[in-house]
Parts: sequence; structure tokens; C-alpha cells
Amino acid sequence: MQNKPQLTVVKIGGNVIDNPDALKAFLADFALVEGYKILVHGGGKIATKTAEGLGITAVFHEGRRITDKPMLDVAVMTYAGLINKDITAQLQSLGNNAIGFTGADGNLILSEKRKNAAVDFGFVGDVISVADELLKVLLLQNIVPVFCAVTHDGKGQLLNTNADTIAAELAVACSAHFDVKLLYCFEKKGVLTDVENEDSVIKNLTFENYQELREQGAIHSGMLPKLENCFNALNRGVTSIGIGSPEMIKGGSDYTLITP
Amino acid sequence: MQNKPQLTVVKIGGNVIDNPDALKAFLADFALVEGYKILVHGGGKIATKTAEGLGITAVFHEGRRITDKPMLDVAVMTYAGLINKDITAQLQSLGNNAIGFTGADGNLILSEKRKNAAVDFGFVGDVISVADELLKVLLLQNIVPVFCAVTHDGKGQLLNTNADTIAAELAVACSAHFDVKLLYCFEKKGVLTDVENEDSVIKNLTFENYQELREQGAIHSGMLPKLENCFNALNRGVTSIGIGSPEMIKGGSDYTLITP
Repeated sequence: MQNKPQLTVVKIGGNVIDNPDALKAFLADFALVEGYKILVHGGGKIATKTAEGLGITAVFHEGRRITDKPMLDVAVMTYAGLINKDITAQLQSLGNNAIGFTGADGNLILSEKRKNAAVDFGFVGDVISVADELLKVLLLQNIVPVFCAVTHDGKGQLLNTNADTIAAELAVACSAHFDVKLLYCFEKKGVLTDVENEDSVIKNLTFENYQELREQGAIHSGMLPKLENCFNALNRGVTSIGIGSPEMIKGGSDYTLITP
Repeated sequence: MQNKPQLTVVKIGGNVIDNPDALKAFLADFALVEGYKILVHGGGKIATKTAEGLGITAVFHEGRRITDKPMLDVAVMTYAGLINKDITAQLQSLGNNAIGFTGADGNLILSEKRKNAAVDFGFVGDVISVADELLKVLLLQNIVPVFCAVTHDGKGQLLNTNADTIAAELAVACSAHFDVKLLYCFEKKGVLTDVENEDSVIKNLTFENYQELREQGAIHSGMLPKLENCFNALNRGVTSIGIGSPEMIKGGSDYTLITP
């Protein structure tokens, strides 16, 4: 393990992407992260705004979004087009040799259309595999891959895919070649014992104390699926996972460090 | 020269992109092109349609299009997003390991905002340099690069750039490592002596007979700038250039072959 080179996989969401100043500040910090690195970004309000502008209405089924063809096109336009290429150009100006990717590019992330007996969620994909050998070649060329939340099914169809999942799957696949740290940046400082109190960050979580805290009801229920996914990723080879604010990537704030 | 591997650079325009069936047929042919290859695509009516949908009006100055910020965003959404990623996913399904690029990705095409004393054309870039070493690494990995008509200035700004120029600059830069054939697919069968007659294709053009034909007025004036650019690319290292219909790439029709 110790001999593998370090790789940091960072995921950012709408809270950073929707604010041009916050995005700029984040990218300046990200550009300074040493070692090999990958950035994964979610969507943002620009997708909703573009859909509205084009007169496309979001379709929901029991509160869950359905990605129909017009909405997939908007996702591809805004995530893979506008947002991804803006981030790539900004990182280039900061001296990082970024390349923006969907999962279709280089077959980097192959997925399959979500199967659900009851509901057709539309053009939504669940990850099947990651082309870790090509990713390794690119990283060793000092390329900084920037992934958006779009993958493909290998049969010509693009699919919208959850950005948190993409980050986790990239981190797991790359752990074959790298010592991988996965950082989830979100709107809180970390996993909190009291959601009202930003100072209640749990600084260290292992599977053992996670189980204790969960039984005590000390972790907000909304965080439990995210944490289950984190422990799953750790079981599959990721070395450590951080959950916190974007400041986390420069060590500028407390955050939750999750280890096996 | 003989020892360099073969590279084919193919450029397609709106006439192929605007017609899903034509695009599908073209990509099936392109996927079968042997050796290293690069695809460059222009825009298409989808950009105009998206702009209209979003209520963005095209700005012109003396008949020439001005790319203002909203129009640049539409170009990035449709060229780098929708069109580029659709082509990439289709090529993947055909067994070509395609990656879709703007010039910002990997700093592959650096450009500068067009300088013009009289008119500000907006976010339009003229190519300065191509990262041929990285392109070579990618090609030797059997990656099929797919370029859209977007580049960047290295300072964080994306720029709209003529797809014909991108194809020529890629071909010239790659001729340092490859024996490069550049194929321009367009709506005619080739350079015609009689624009009304598709059977009047000039099958072979060298600089010598081009000069003669030009003096005789046997070449339509609209083709002259394109041909001047072709001879310029040949002077800078490209081995040969084809101008013809998309059928040309599979040898399925007459076309104009231009050599020094």
C-alpha cells in the first residue's frame, strides 16, 4: 500500500458550482492540491434554468426525478458542456492540465440504464465499470481529469449518473493503482452530531464508532445512506474519505475523516 | 516520411450533423477507417435552435456573426456538450475508443481572441498552438480524439473557433509525428469546375494545376479561400488533402485530392 502514489478524488456539488466566486476560490485551492487528482462535479441551478428557458418541465414520480430525453439533453448541455468546460478552462489557467470527461469519453465510466420494476427513471445510469488502466495512463501524464455526472451504456446512449456515486466508483477503481483519498465537499462542515450546530463536527469516524453513534441516534438520518456508501468504498480499497466544506481540501477547516 | 504512421483527420459540418441518419451512417463509415484518426465537427442547426429557444438573438456586424457571451455559452452547450458527446458515445458503440475534446482539454488547442481594429468579433479565437505531444500519446493509446469548434486562451476563457481551421491546425501539428491525410467532408462531391454539375469534380489538384485553373476562372470563387488554406497546410507538412462528400472517407465516391 505505502508504495502506491497518492491520488485525491474531490467531489463538489451545486453549492460551489452555482456561485461563480465560490467556484473560482475552490478551483484556486484545488489547483494547489499536490499529487495526482481527479475532480468530480454535480449539476447546479444552471441546468434547471436552461430547462426552464427551453420550456422543458421536470417530470417527477413520487418525489423522484425522471430523466426524460429533453432533460437528459439539458444535463449533457450544461454538465458536460457549460460547467465542465468552464472548470477545465479555469484549471488550465491555474496551471493544472485538466481534461473534462463524461463516462463516454475513453469509455471511462460504463453504466447501465437503471432497472426498476415499478418505475422507469428514464435516462439514469448505474455504474458498471471504470477504465482504470486508461485513467492511470492519463494521471501519469499529469492530466487532471474533471468528470461530470454523465456516463454511457456502451451502446450509444448517454446516461445521467449521480455524481457522488461517480466519485466513489472512480476512487474504488483507482485504488488498484493509487493510495486514494476521497473528499466529498458539501454545504456543511462535516458529519454533525447536531445539525443545527456547525461546531458539532465528528472529526473521526471508523466503522466501529460509526455503529455506536448510529445506535445512539447521534447521526442525522439524512447522512446515513451517504455514510453507508463511504464504508462500502473503504471496504473496496479506498484509503480514507473526508466529508466537509470546500475549505477541507486545503486543510482550512474541521471535517469528518472516515477510515475503515 | 515513409516511416511515420498514417493519421487521417476528418472534418464534418452541419450537413452531416443536422441529419441524425446521415450522422449515424457517417460514423459507421468513420469507425471503419483504419489507422490513427481524428474527427473534427462543426456546429449545426441545434445551436441556432437552442439559442432561439433561450431567447438569444444572433448579433451580426456587416454580415459577419459576432459571438457575444450568451452565444458563446450556446456554442459550448451544443458543440462541446450535446453534439460532441453524442458523437463520442456513438463511436464508442462502434468500437472506437473516442474522447471528445475542446481545445481547453489538455490545453490541446490554445488560441487568442481575434484582434481586429474595426470590429470586436467577440469570443472568437484564432489558433496559436496545438499540444501535439499529448495528442500523440493519446493516439498511440488508440484513442480517437473528437474535436468540437471550441478552444481556449489559456487564461480561463473559452473561444469559438472555425472547425475547418481546427482541422487544418491539428493536421499540421500532427505531421511532426504522422503521415497526415486531411479530409474535408462537405455538401458537394469535391471542387467542381461547374458548380451546377456534380460530375465536374476535379479529381486531382496540385499547386501547379490549381494556379492554371484559377487563372482560367475554372474554379468557383467561393472555393478559393478554402483551397488557399489547403495549400498552406500542405506547405506546412500535411501529406494530402481530400475535399468531397462524406462518402469520400470510405472511397465511395469521386472527390478532389489535393497534393503539393
